[in-house]
Amino acid sequence: MTTPVPAPGLPPDSLDDLRERLRRFAAERDWEQFHTPKNLAMSVAIEAAEIMEHFQWLTAAQSADLDAAARHEAALEIADVLLYLVRLADALDVDMVAAAREKIELNARRYPARHGL
Amino acid sequence: MTTPVPAPGLPPDSLDDLRERLRRFAAERDWEQFHTPKNLAMSVAIEAAEIMEHFQWLTAAQSADLDAAARHEAALEIADVLLYLVRLADALDVDMVAAAREKIELNARRYPARHGL
Amino acid sequence: MTTPVPAPGLPPDSLDDLRERLRRFAAERDWEQFHTPKNLAMSVAIEAAEIMEHFQWLTAAQSADLDAAARHEAALEIADVLLYLVRLADALDVDMVAAAREKIELNARRYPARHGL
Amino acid sequence: MTTPVPAPGLPPDSLDDLRERLRRFAAERDWEQFHTPKNLAMSVAIEAAEIMEHFQWLTAAQSADLDAAARHEAALEIADVLLYLVRLADALDVDMVAAAREKIELNARRYPARHGL
Repeated sequence: MTTPVPAPGLPPDSLDDLRERLRRFAAERDWEQFHTPKNLAMSVAIEAAEIMEHFQWLTAAQSADLDAAARHEAALEIADVLLYLVRLADALDVDMVAAAREKIELNARRYPARHGL
Repeated sequence: MTTPVPAPGLPPDSLDDLRERLRRFAAERDWEQFHTPKNLAMSVAIEAAEIMEHFQWLTAAQSADLDAAARHEAALEIADVLLYLVRLADALDVDMVAAAREKIELNARRYPARHGL
Repeated sequence: MTTPVPAPGLPPDSLDDLRERLRRFAAERDWEQFHTPKNLAMSVAIEAAEIMEHFQWLTAAQSADLDAAARHEAALEIADVLLYLVRLADALDVDMVAAAREKIELNARRYPARHGL
Repeated sequence: MTTPVPAPGLPPDSLDDLRERLRRFAAERDWEQFHTPKNLAMSVAIEAAEIMEHFQWLTAAQSADLDAAARHEAALEIADVLLYLVRLADALDVDMVAAAREKIELNARRYPARHGL
């Protein structure tokens, strides 16, 4: 994997930092054996469903008006998806931020803006 | 929202950059009305399932040995989850990287390392 | 909805029976207001993820060799998906068994059998 | 597996019929090797997400007011979940209707009815 190394003195990108923490976390627990792309893809989907549980019975308006405690609970579920997503991208040795930029470009062509801003 | 502003001359964090791109993307298409937390949570789960489709019938070993084309396809699906996740965190006005670091700390206490490294 | 009524003396179809039980269950709790097709579709997906949790870290072979207690736990998760699926089909007023037979026919044409039996 | 056999002259239960069709379908294509409980659990979740795609951007009211064509499309997605669910229950050798009745009883105790009907 070509791990981008920040120039000396620059802060590391937040996703690079999470990736390194997760590598250590898995290594210290002998969990690498479980972290196949197939299993990690399941984990991403399982955690994504846990985000939905917070919104399942809310109206659209209620979902946009959570109090601070509920927002923090949702943030921790979002975090779980992010962590498994970072780990999956690492297991596949792909750069998900580069892929995300590519996808935005693809979507911009697929769905042209209706007006300028 | 307290958007972290990088110091002049420093590269923006990759997730901050994606968040800004997605805000513009939605605004230019009048899509903000659809981007309720409830709908975005569904989108995250839908795209997570599309990642799984790439691994559904593969063995664990096959999933860890994709060729470059298949890895790129998977990366674009991972990107879709990341983009909706960034957008959901923005809609809820939460810092998902801070939440991810908090979650790693919680998990470290919950699952103590079996040995040092 | 054209609810099939079994002839007198015949046992009701199991799915018809579940549908009726669920109608009563929701009515007795004033839950019909929450049971929109959109919310029920989310519920099906959330419960489907809970099935996956039972298999997430197992090998394919382990997943096929559960003990009786684990099989019962999995059966109760499968039941949750089935119940929401029955409720969703009822909310949409569609016959999911007829649709399932139609889908088997479509799949038989899409994926021809490689050999007779 | 204790396959319930309907008495002579009685119609088979719809889920028993689907289970038998799916057994033949898989056998005729040599697909049994892929139909591990782990893989089938993924399939249920993937198809559940495809149901959600039909409701993702609809309001609650719109989701309850689909036209006939949209309802049929949704029915075919519901059918996919049902088929994989039947297949998963068969692979695990569990009776999902019995489990569903057990779950309704558990839920009735967990969520007492607010009023009689």
